[in-house]
Amino acid sequence: MIKIVLLGAGNVATHLYKGFKNASNIEVVQWYNRSKKAIEAYKNDVNITDNISDLVDADVYLIAVNDDAIEALTNSLPFEKRLVVHTSGSASLYDIDMKHYRGVFYPLQTFSKGVDLDFTTVPICIETLRKKDFKILEILGQSLGCTTYKVNPKQRPALHLAAVFVNNFTNQIYRIAHEITEKHGAEFDILKPLITETARKVQEVSPYMAQTGPAKRNDKKTIKRHLKLLDNPHQEDIYKLMTESIKKTHGR
Amino acid sequence: MIKIVLLGAGNVATHLYKGFKNASNIEVVQWYNRSKKAIEAYKNDVNITDNISDLVDADVYLIAVNDDAIEALTNSLPFEKRLVVHTSGSASLYDIDMKHYRGVFYPLQTFSKGVDLDFTTVPICIETLRKKDFKILEILGQSLGCTTYKVNPKQRPALHLAAVFVNNFTNQIYRIAHEITEKHGAEFDILKPLITETARKVQEVSPYMAQTGPAKRNDKKTIKRHLKLLDNPHQEDIYKLMTESIKKTHGR
Repeated sequence: MIKIVLLGAGNVATHLYKGFKNASNIEVVQWYNRSKKAIEAYKNDVNITDNISDLVDADVYLIAVNDDAIEALTNSLPFEKRLVVHTSGSASLYDIDMKHYRGVFYPLQTFSKGVDLDFTTVPICIETLRKKDFKILEILGQSLGCTTYKVNPKQRPALHLAAVFVNNFTNQIYRIAHEITEKHGAEFDILKPLITETARKVQEVSPYMAQTGPAKRNDKKTIKRHLKLLDNPHQEDIYKLMTESIKKTHGR
Repeated sequence: MIKIVLLGAGNVATHLYKGFKNASNIEVVQWYNRSKKAIEAYKNDVNITDNISDLVDADVYLIAVNDDAIEALTNSLPFEKRLVVHTSGSASLYDIDMKHYRGVFYPLQTFSKGVDLDFTTVPICIETLRKKDFKILEILGQSLGCTTYKVNPKQRPALHLAAVFVNNFTNQIYRIAHEITEKHGAEFDILKPLITETARKVQEVSPYMAQTGPAKRNDKKTIKRHLKLLDNPHQEDIYKLMTESIKKTHGR
């Protein structure tokens, strides 16, 4: 049984709490948040607190707070030489106060509020300084049903950056497609199967191999027609830059 | 039974042929291509020809050739007042010679060579001049198992443009994420569940509602860190432009 104290009450913390509750060999012994109100709904299920000096003993102190708050929070913990890990993709392991055994437990997935998460679709990127801490976090991840990956301080920020591309930037591309369809009175819904298939394809072949379309073919006529259709200069900039990018990749 | 003559031998034509073969109320009575070689593999299943003057009677002449070839091909057809439709998202209905009854049967999906297509995931955008032609094409699409949509000459090019965004541009975003992970020795595979989830999310909520991340939060520290990590000016340009785009959309 791995005993956990969870710190933070955001989206990630809440999803992890629910995951841990369903895992047979994990016990959340306490849930801390600076404001008790955010976790009050769970007070009958778990020991909740807003007092940092009340923290109980645990195998792992799991910190799911804003990146900027990690350093101060870990510094304020009233103990040392225990395993304290954050869940950020971006913050350094060294943001955790050096009095602790330090680690990172980064779930590389997008979390939607109110939607139950299928943890089997959540890869966990683990970074630790000590081998035995890695083992604990690995078991923690596997108990949730996640696939775990050992990453180093160079790989994790790169994965976080790449995640911004495939998640935020892709989603913004969808958004612009939505704007285009709306503007011309067409249904965005018609694009949904294509969105699904585009994501499915790269599960099997590389994005390089999966590419098709006017930019790859350097089909100047279609590109010109598309640019004419876009009367929004910002959308035009994106069309041009992405088209250039595809041409560059495919040697056009 | 709808009788079809299929013209062309590319990816779209081949997938449609296979779909029609499996549909109970459709008969491909002939398959034409200017080079017989490309369709020779099917000669025992269907009447094939490379001679335009040999074309037989049919309810629909379905043209799946390059956009640039539509006009000349339809002009050369040795008959008139029959239903002739192309499958392009981009070409005009008026690219079809005016001696025919004209229509468009545009499958808005990405077709992979060698992978059998699930037609239930293919929306068909239909454009015709006559109501009765629309009916025939609607039955044709439904017989394949597709969902059909009536579109007008303004909507279809917009859908095609939007499809380039959600398919080609999204795929290029994946490609850049692949470059970033490779460069830092991380596994692109770790991103695959996130790619799937990002596409799944917008099946249910709008891309606007689905957005998260540093650009939406205007998290300058993370953005700065990401830009520092990108040493490729082209990737930097894309990062900056997409970040600006998200800020713009979300009023930052």
